Amino acid sequence: MDTFLQEAIKEAEKGYNEGGIPIGSVIVHEGKIIGRGHNRRVQKGSAILHGEMDALENAGRQPASVYKNSVLYTTLSPCPMCSGTILLYGIPKVIIGENKTFMGEEELLKSRGVQVEVVNNERCIELMETFIKEKPELWNEDIGEE
Amino acid sequence: MDTFLQEAIKEAEKGYNEGGIPIGSVIVHEGKIIGRGHNRRVQKGSAILHGEMDALENAGRQPASVYKNSVLYTTLSPCPMCSGTILLYGIPKVIIGENKTFMGEEELLKSRGVQVEVVNNERCIELMETFIKEKPELWNEDIGEE
Repeated sequence: MDTFLQEAIKEAEKGYNEGGIPIGSVIVHEGKIIGRGHNRRVQKGSAILHGEMDALENAGRQPASVYKNSVLYTTLSPCPMCSGTILLYGIPKVIIGENKTFMGEEELLKSRGVQVEVVNNERCIELMETFIKEKPELWNEDIGEE
Repeated sequence: MDTFLQEAIKEAEKGYNEGGIPIGSVIVHEGKIIGRGHNRRVQKGSAILHGEMDALENAGRQPASVYKNSVLYTTLSPCPMCSGTILLYGIPKVIIGENKTFMGEEELLKSRGVQVEVVNNERCIELMETFIKEKPELWNEDIGEE
């Protein structure tokens, strides 16, 4: 399997082990991870630190040229917030662990020219299925549902 | 003028006085400000704390029902990241100070049923025009442009 997706999964597992939402992400620039992170809603009481946002925040302030030559790996199909962030920074390619437990804004991304690849990785699906079963109300909060 | 837009402008001015990007936001739930903030790219070295994101983060974790009965005030037309966040949380109404210096994803928001109102406030325009003239490279970084 892709090493970078494996790193995103490690982040998701870290989040799960912290009692959080098991979604992880890494951002890769020219073959090197420049930011990694996982959903920290629970850990930091955050409404905006989804896995992708945490990875981008941990990458720090970057010029446009860096984002435009990067690939974002995420264990779950990106929600509207994270998809919007991908569009803001012009990240050209997104590798998605799975979109079975949640379908994000993949169509919007594609319509704006972002290359979207869905792996449907078993471990990603398993992590989310376990979590949603254990803490459905927390998951609903994270995706803005009742 | 709308008191809440005035509060968003106060946030933008605070940001400008801190040497940051002068965009401010407040989120109002049932007539009461529950979160306020301004762009903190410079102040916190952040890639994700746009004014709207800062206000939402400062509002803390909220159930979907709160967002769905809130109005977001922002001094500038919301970029793809902030627009995506509005969609994620189902915020039904956005009041925008101006869209003259930057046009965000207003069409996307409207196409998803969000009520969008643009005030074209002189103070909002003046703050951005001054800032863009003074620090064009910082502004480009904030909107992912070269």
